[in-house]
Amino acid sequence: MAHLGVEVAEVRAGLVTLKMKFRPELTQQHGFFHAGGSATIADSAGGYAAYTLFPENSSVLTVEFKLNLINPAQGDWLEATGRVVKPGRTLTICQLDVWGVSGGSRRHVATGLQTLICMKDRPDTGS
Amino acid sequence: MAHLGVEVAEVRAGLVTLKMKFRPELTQQHGFFHAGGSATIADSAGGYAAYTLFPENSSVLTVEFKLNLINPAQGDWLEATGRVVKPGRTLTICQLDVWGVSGGSRRHVATGLQTLICMKDRPDTGS
Amino acid sequence: MAHLGVEVAEVRAGLVTLKMKFRPELTQQHGFFHAGGSATIADSAGGYAAYTLFPENSSVLTVEFKLNLINPAQGDWLEATGRVVKPGRTLTICQLDVWGVSGGSRRHVATGLQTLICMKDRPDTGS
Amino acid sequence: MAHLGVEVAEVRAGLVTLKMKFRPELTQQHGFFHAGGSATIADSAGGYAAYTLFPENSSVLTVEFKLNLINPAQGDWLEATGRVVKPGRTLTICQLDVWGVSGGSRRHVATGLQTLICMKDRPDTGS
Repeated sequence: MAHLGVEVAEVRAGLVTLKMKFRPELTQQHGFFHAGGSATIADSAGGYAAYTLFPENSSVLTVEFKLNLINPAQGDWLEATGRVVKPGRTLTICQLDVWGVSGGSRRHVATGLQTLICMKDRPDTGS
Repeated sequence: MAHLGVEVAEVRAGLVTLKMKFRPELTQQHGFFHAGGSATIADSAGGYAAYTLFPENSSVLTVEFKLNLINPAQGDWLEATGRVVKPGRTLTICQLDVWGVSGGSRRHVATGLQTLICMKDRPDTGS
Repeated sequence: MAHLGVEVAEVRAGLVTLKMKFRPELTQQHGFFHAGGSATIADSAGGYAAYTLFPENSSVLTVEFKLNLINPAQGDWLEATGRVVKPGRTLTICQLDVWGVSGGSRRHVATGLQTLICMKDRPDTGS
Repeated sequence: MAHLGVEVAEVRAGLVTLKMKFRPELTQQHGFFHAGGSATIADSAGGYAAYTLFPENSSVLTVEFKLNLINPAQGDWLEATGRVVKPGRTLTICQLDVWGVSGGSRRHVATGLQTLICMKDRPDTGS
């Protein structure tokens, strides 16, 4: 994530918001953030949101996600929120939303759903 | 895409395969390519595959995509194929598949579906 | 829809709620409403919600939808809400939610996203 | 499923095909099978396909599915195939495809992906 210039904006139980600064090398042919950029930050926000509700010594893997790209991903930075809709011992479902932020304006650029699995006794070593 | 080290491996009408070399800064906590990496290369492969069937002076935008991450995204490089399942004047549907390739072995790491829209009279300027 | 015992509970611009009474022949092996039942009512609620924002002499078709089944679809009836997240001239995106309702209790049984297309000059004749 | 006139056309390990006869009460406003009809038969085909690979004393639940509706669901009957793409102890991923069949012609009407979970020690009692 450091590679992509992502930072954590907010962490609550079951809700995480990440921010990613705009960089020219992440833009696609129209000058927008590439869909992959929105997907990367949205997937990560959902993964962290699920992880806030997981027991110790567990880790998180994305099973699948779906993203609708509803407006051009423009702005000074992208902001992505993952929100747990349904926590579970094995599977957790998150809603994903991405905004393009520019000065005072915020635009909803993507919305999605994500299924995550809790891997028990496989702590995240950070390596 | 240059930023992510992606190159084109195959282009046919309605089918494009891209390759992305493994780089440590793209890995997630378990040492795998991040889901965002698979999503980025898969989305791009599908976008190019659709584009091969589009008329001149048009461009392509991803409406939505869904990706199932079915095996760890490990290997020397990731390979993604976008294949047009249903071409259309307005909407095109692609199947997306990602493999992790290592020496002689190939492992299916993700499969997905993508909906794309053809933007007429809006040529891709490459800028 | 009459075949499935569906009725309209609420219609606002961009938001429609439908209700479907529980019937044994719609249940699956565990005594729950089959996933197909949730999908049918959710898809319809989203289709009607999009349609409330469409111009005259147009009709609506579902391009795709994705549904997460998050709790058993039990209850006296199922209630589905389609809510327009992003209206558009060509494509409209809806959020879909289904609840199982029983006496005083409501349980969130499914959540999803749906992409719809507006077919102009093709009025719905009801035939 | 009996309610909807569905019958089993083929069962192999990891692959099941179901058929559903056209009935006027399942059609939508354009005279097509409703999206819910395609979803119901596709979800069931995938569920059975996964179940063919599950151990004894287990049952199957759909976690989520996504369906692209690519052609009008017309014909004398609908045929749906669920094919296991990735079997697993906990989660199984299926590809879903639906065809409209009419006399000698077959048309691809929907394609999708589905995630299923194996519930151990919870046999399907058929009740």
